[in-house]
Amino acid sequence: QDEIQNNYENAGTKLLGENLPKGVTIGGYGQIDYNEPDGALPGNLDIHRLVLLFGYKFNDKVSFLTEVEYEHVKEVYVEQAYIKYKANENVNVLAGLMLVPMGIINEFHEPTTYYGVERPNVDKYIVPTTWRELGVGISGNINNASLKYQAYLFNGFKSYADGAGILRGSDGLRKGRQKGAESVINSPNFSAKLDYYGIMGLRVGLSGYFGKTQTDDSGIEASTVGVSMLGLDARYKYNNLELRGQYITTNLSDTDEYNTLTGKDLGSKLTGLYAEVAYNFDLKGVEKLTPFLRYEKHNTHADTAGSLIANKAYDRDELIFGLNYKVAEGAAFKVDYQLMNNAVYGSDAAKQFNAGVAIWF
Amino acid sequence: QDEIQNNYENAGTKLLGENLPKGVTIGGYGQIDYNEPDGALPGNLDIHRLVLLFGYKFNDKVSFLTEVEYEHVKEVYVEQAYIKYKANENVNVLAGLMLVPMGIINEFHEPTTYYGVERPNVDKYIVPTTWRELGVGISGNINNASLKYQAYLFNGFKSYADGAGILRGSDGLRKGRQKGAESVINSPNFSAKLDYYGIMGLRVGLSGYFGKTQTDDSGIEASTVGVSMLGLDARYKYNNLELRGQYITTNLSDTDEYNTLTGKDLGSKLTGLYAEVAYNFDLKGVEKLTPFLRYEKHNTHADTAGSLIANKAYDRDELIFGLNYKVAEGAAFKVDYQLMNNAVYGSDAAKQFNAGVAIWF
Amino acid sequence: QDEIQNNYENAGTKLLGENLPKGVTIGGYGQIDYNEPDGALPGNLDIHRLVLLFGYKFNDKVSFLTEVEYEHVKEVYVEQAYIKYKANENVNVLAGLMLVPMGIINEFHEPTTYYGVERPNVDKYIVPTTWRELGVGISGNINNASLKYQAYLFNGFKSYADGAGILRGSDGLRKGRQKGAESVINSPNFSAKLDYYGIMGLRVGLSGYFGKTQTDDSGIEASTVGVSMLGLDARYKYNNLELRGQYITTNLSDTDEYNTLTGKDLGSKLTGLYAEVAYNFDLKGVEKLTPFLRYEKHNTHADTAGSLIANKAYDRDELIFGLNYKVAEGAAFKVDYQLMNNAVYGSDAAKQFNAGVAIWF
Repeated sequence: QDEIQNNYENAGTKLLGENLPKGVTIGGYGQIDYNEPDGALPGNLDIHRLVLLFGYKFNDKVSFLTEVEYEHVKEVYVEQAYIKYKANENVNVLAGLMLVPMGIINEFHEPTTYYGVERPNVDKYIVPTTWRELGVGISGNINNASLKYQAYLFNGFKSYADGAGILRGSDGLRKGRQKGAESVINSPNFSAKLDYYGIMGLRVGLSGYFGKTQTDDSGIEASTVGVSMLGLDARYKYNNLELRGQYITTNLSDTDEYNTLTGKDLGSKLTGLYAEVAYNFDLKGVEKLTPFLRYEKHNTHADTAGSLIANKAYDRDELIFGLNYKVAEGAAFKVDYQLMNNAVYGSDAAKQFNAGVAIWF
Repeated sequence: QDEIQNNYENAGTKLLGENLPKGVTIGGYGQIDYNEPDGALPGNLDIHRLVLLFGYKFNDKVSFLTEVEYEHVKEVYVEQAYIKYKANENVNVLAGLMLVPMGIINEFHEPTTYYGVERPNVDKYIVPTTWRELGVGISGNINNASLKYQAYLFNGFKSYADGAGILRGSDGLRKGRQKGAESVINSPNFSAKLDYYGIMGLRVGLSGYFGKTQTDDSGIEASTVGVSMLGLDARYKYNNLELRGQYITTNLSDTDEYNTLTGKDLGSKLTGLYAEVAYNFDLKGVEKLTPFLRYEKHNTHADTAGSLIANKAYDRDELIFGLNYKVAEGAAFKVDYQLMNNAVYGSDAAKQFNAGVAIWF
Repeated sequence: QDEIQNNYENAGTKLLGENLPKGVTIGGYGQIDYNEPDGALPGNLDIHRLVLLFGYKFNDKVSFLTEVEYEHVKEVYVEQAYIKYKANENVNVLAGLMLVPMGIINEFHEPTTYYGVERPNVDKYIVPTTWRELGVGISGNINNASLKYQAYLFNGFKSYADGAGILRGSDGLRKGRQKGAESVINSPNFSAKLDYYGIMGLRVGLSGYFGKTQTDDSGIEASTVGVSMLGLDARYKYNNLELRGQYITTNLSDTDEYNTLTGKDLGSKLTGLYAEVAYNFDLKGVEKLTPFLRYEKHNTHADTAGSLIANKAYDRDELIFGLNYKVAEGAAFKVDYQLMNNAVYGSDAAKQFNAGVAIWF
């Protein structure tokens, strides 16, 4: 069935699997990074993230998942915490802190599921991975149409608090994530994703997210902006070849008024894409050596409203290539090299060497 | 035996159960809250608490329990951590960070064990739930008298540190909880509870707590106050009907001198009570729909010493009614409506709608 | 085999043991302390540390261990996180956040493995326990020579950041531990240990650590110092008698320039030793009562460079004696009394009573 559905697992599907017995399941993932920028700056060694996951199956219909993340050794976040109620074979009702389905990485962010030491930057600047909010929704499969569907009402980004704006041009919506922590809600946002898995080896996704940002002063209309995000992604496997790509475009409305109120430089359009090719060389046993190449392009000032002039430093592209040495299902050593550029005239490409350990169980 | 003893479980009794094998046991509980105050204020969505519990049975006599709590997504507390030594069938010796047995909720605070999205407010303002301190004690059952007993020496509340007072009128002893974190001790306090379970369906508890607060400057006598707390609680089940109630009264001595020294407004008497009625409608399988109604009244200025005039804003009552939809043993969806009032002349009742998810495993 | 190798377990060897099946293993340890200094100061009660450990065996060759520590109830640290790759019977390759093998306690810091409520102070001031850094290394046994070997490249101490020095006379290298948290690296340090277990009941260790400290401004040569540390340790069991001792000596180079640049008082030589004797009285079952006596001497100003005059307050010794009441494998109650002295003329010995609970599973 996995092959028919061109399935990809994440921690949630793994720990709440249908065939598991009643009781506790435990998982975890982690990535340890070494980043060495070209030039005089010292290198950086970091336990970037270490995550523990706990699932519990109450009975055949009701289960719960939580993800507890330790970042940089000493910061803790509950990143997922939701209850899943299986209404029937094709419909699950979900409620709690969940991942917003947009693009590939936000839902599949376990470090052995992608290539490169760090996550793609499109999934940092345009999709603010790990993007999770409190909400309710439904999900399920329509197998005779080879479709998986997800639809949610989520709490939105916070754009304004304590008399000041939160969102900005350099990373768009990223600072507005409320993460389920004493979050403010005025109006829920709608999120949905359709995955089509009807062609052998291929999985294509179409994501949408629509709504408004949240504010702690709903009397000030200009303190919120409208959000409309669309994403298209594809993953393809053919023998030892793996191809991936995604395109994300976000339109923000009323940014002119928002920027005037807050003095911020939030763009009105944000776009990003990447394309990746990888080839698996089989070594002994389950070990695999996988060279890969990825090109990314993203711009948080793809358009700006009113008198705001687009900042070319936010128009970035990036080439990354490297090796993934998988030593077990769920364990890999990684090295790669990044060339990062922006559209500012005469700016040099920044270069960085990365190496890391990635685990997921 | 459960029915004979009119037993109620909490995480500790569940994870350290007599019949469990040697080794690790894992549990957890959590509550996700949506609070919508009446009026212009925005709603609040929060992972209020997410808790993981780990028990370990070393051998037939010695076991250990710990509870690690994540509040509001990113604050962490070790809330319980104690060793239990079974001296004989009727006597357990306990040492470590433990729950003070006072009223119902402090010991039974797992969110699927009570009705309403939030815990009763008597168990916030009068019993400072979750009230846990480091201590040593004994517990056990005297089955032929249908009694459970508990008796402890606990570290007390901290009332004074770095030249300033800590306790105050609005929430009495709550700010003084030391929680086992590099806590200061001058003199231990005594805590005990007796539970009588000799009548079918009924469990009645009588709790007492006596001692003095702690100070980091024991040379200043006025920096401490005496504490004497009494609690009476009852839980009754008859077919699908559930009744609960508790009454707590606290006398604090030397508050006049304490308030003079520190400029605080700590009351000399704190009282609180609640009564609750709930009725379980059986749905399919284990599912139950339970409407409930609870009335609470509590006053942290039930009396004041010296020239301190009682603040009527601290004389509060509350009516709360709602629905509990239990979808599995240990999982429920909740909605309720709260009407909160105080004794200030002409003050309006504050109203709030709450909805939430509660899990415990 | 354990007896032949005079083996001592720690959490890592326990959770990644060769004979364990594929999957998750869980462990934990904790210590709850009561410290009562002689004199007017109030006592201290603290959940000093509570630790959870998770191991995962991916397959016969690859495993992962992590240790998550909660200190003083509300601080969290990932203290270990490494992948272990078994290249062959005698060689393991390790990478990640690991314990530096120096002396006894840093590698064997679970509170039921040592006597006394607190860890020896030599293992605080001279060996900065818990000393862990990111690195890569190898380990294994050469059984026909009765040797265990370990060799690593670790990230070093950070001596300089944001224009200021970090290391100081009172505790030497301790403040410089980077702990794998967004740590700065200029040059790796070398660490190795050899353990000889060829004589019944005896285990002798020789540790070395050599390198330079790290700086965020490698253009300032005086911002780093050279580090050269040697340790000798021995553990001996004969019937119910247990003997332990260790000697550590550290030479720091270029401290004169470092102190001139930063205004610090870092010593150029740090030394420490302790010797301990304990005797186990067998009680019923696995219970044991163990009186012990330990003498410690350590000096973080054993020598100083340039014009820096040695501070005699850093030349400390200590006598500690007490009782360990083991109630189960992995659970003990402890009491002891400490007499602490320093070389300042006319200074009084500080005295402290300690009691505690220690668990490890």
